[in-house]
Amino acid sequence: MSATEATTATSREWQLAARPQGWPTTDDFRFVERDLPPLGPGEVRVRNAYLSVDPYMRGRMDDTPSYVPPYELDKAMEGGAVGRVEASRSDGLSEGDLVLHTLGWRDVAQGPAAAFRRIDPVPGVPESAYLHVLGMTGLTAYVGLLDVARMEPGDTVFISGAAGAVGGVAGQIARLKGASRVVGSAGSDAKVDLLTSKYGYDAAFNYKSGEVDALLRDAAPDGIDVYFDNVGGDHLEAALAAFNRGGRAAVCGMISAYNTEEPSAAPRNLSELIKKGLTLKGFTVGFYADRMKDFIAEAGQWLAEGSLVYDETVVDGVDNTLQAFLDMMRGANTGKMLVRVS
Amino acid sequence: MSATEATTATSREWQLAARPQGWPTTDDFRFVERDLPPLGPGEVRVRNAYLSVDPYMRGRMDDTPSYVPPYELDKAMEGGAVGRVEASRSDGLSEGDLVLHTLGWRDVAQGPAAAFRRIDPVPGVPESAYLHVLGMTGLTAYVGLLDVARMEPGDTVFISGAAGAVGGVAGQIARLKGASRVVGSAGSDAKVDLLTSKYGYDAAFNYKSGEVDALLRDAAPDGIDVYFDNVGGDHLEAALAAFNRGGRAAVCGMISAYNTEEPSAAPRNLSELIKKGLTLKGFTVGFYADRMKDFIAEAGQWLAEGSLVYDETVVDGVDNTLQAFLDMMRGANTGKMLVRVS
Repeated sequence: MSATEATTATSREWQLAARPQGWPTTDDFRFVERDLPPLGPGEVRVRNAYLSVDPYMRGRMDDTPSYVPPYELDKAMEGGAVGRVEASRSDGLSEGDLVLHTLGWRDVAQGPAAAFRRIDPVPGVPESAYLHVLGMTGLTAYVGLLDVARMEPGDTVFISGAAGAVGGVAGQIARLKGASRVVGSAGSDAKVDLLTSKYGYDAAFNYKSGEVDALLRDAAPDGIDVYFDNVGGDHLEAALAAFNRGGRAAVCGMISAYNTEEPSAAPRNLSELIKKGLTLKGFTVGFYADRMKDFIAEAGQWLAEGSLVYDETVVDGVDNTLQAFLDMMRGANTGKMLVRVS
Repeated sequence: MSATEATTATSREWQLAARPQGWPTTDDFRFVERDLPPLGPGEVRVRNAYLSVDPYMRGRMDDTPSYVPPYELDKAMEGGAVGRVEASRSDGLSEGDLVLHTLGWRDVAQGPAAAFRRIDPVPGVPESAYLHVLGMTGLTAYVGLLDVARMEPGDTVFISGAAGAVGGVAGQIARLKGASRVVGSAGSDAKVDLLTSKYGYDAAFNYKSGEVDALLRDAAPDGIDVYFDNVGGDHLEAALAAFNRGGRAAVCGMISAYNTEEPSAAPRNLSELIKKGLTLKGFTVGFYADRMKDFIAEAGQWLAEGSLVYDETVVDGVDNTLQAFLDMMRGANTGKMLVRVS
């Protein structure tokens, strides 16, 4: 397709119409089709193959300072996406190149070439993998365990939200890096089965089946050394109680708090920090981007060996992106939640 | 005095009679005089000069697992003390030696020589200093700032309970180690004055005069990098809100929670950990004992130069030890709370 043909392109995209109070509703968004302007010098147009929907996006719907700026009202929402260049006025990118970018929530993305990062495809790895296991999701699991929580061989590791996109990778990395015991929590019996049957967890529990505190004690009777926190609230409180001396938590997400209008229930046992010399360290993956190369080298080999597996939940059609996001927030996904555009 | 004469010695000591519910009352304790047995081989008898009363002792009155075992009912309570050997059947200690030990809450302590550590007195330093500024209290401030919170020159440092025994030293060490701004909180206007007039704080506030969150924002308008937490609760919540990216808290005490029967109000904004990449690290000084030598060398020089100053609140009489403890828990002390035995 030439740049001339491409001038007729349209984009179908999701816009934020109002800032949600608590759980987002369909009234807070609109799905529009709009004509794209002609490609300017240095610009490219990309037809997206897959879009990513992620918990952090809920935070961007609020107008509060955070590590990423809030979504603007009446503009297309953003997010991770992978696609192929279909028109280019840049020397750096050619038609057909596979690219990663953050202009998601639309079928066609257009902008300066610098906004798109070309991928050198690893043989046998599907396009969607760059949005999770070989992308920021996998990197989040990797640096959370190794750089933030400083996991050591022999540690007992607890991962909450373990069947989620990050959690599913984190448990496997813990195992591959020599954890003595890997324990996970998830929100359904089916996910719990998946953790032990597919992701190599030694024990897992359904956090809806009882008190997290007691469930964790049963799953890790000798205590835990590392906690990878995707949930916060009762899970963090249970981890503080279960920690052995010198325990370390990588605080990655607090999905339990994202959709409450009130501040979330905080752990009531923070004095455990003192008694046991514990460390809680929060992080966002953006500050560990320099570890991507190490990660790709190591995780690429694990994927090639078959020692790192993953799940995807794929929803078809860009018009279903909002529903995919809401379903993900409610835990309907197993592994990474993705939208297949075409 | 010979060992023979010493066999007639008695000890006046405080015993725990019942485990307190909430605030301790005098009914929970008894003050008794008892005859001491003759000195056994390898034992020494020490007449205490000063006793230490400290917040952590409240925790030992409960029968719950902690970093130090609970006090036993109907036995003499323990705590830091400094005194002089008055009888010895040990080759390692001689009559007249100045010793540090943990058999406090009594006027005369007796036991194996290994329970007493001989002090090489630093010229010009009074005996009581080894119970605070040159002892575990000073070491707590030192390792909390430098090892746990990893304070760097140029950091803005916030210290809660800043007029307390640890806080008073911590602020000065922050200044001596190159902090760009040192901010403290205390529980009275008089203490706040002391912080800025004597301990070199750049700003301080009375936390009873308003919302800690707003008071801290005024005192540190450009945010904080390090928080030395002696209080927990609303102070920790305010610090989380005020932290700059990469902020680090040394969690040393949560005095706000010690006397509540309910778990304390926890900070409601723990998600700041994630957004700002913050670290909360709890500690107890016992695990940093190997730093005592470095500390004494550095702090001894600061004391000799007059660049490190301190306050003591001294209560006279071993029979007033309980009252001194209760007064300290209610904040009646300025600097280190001590009991002078004789």
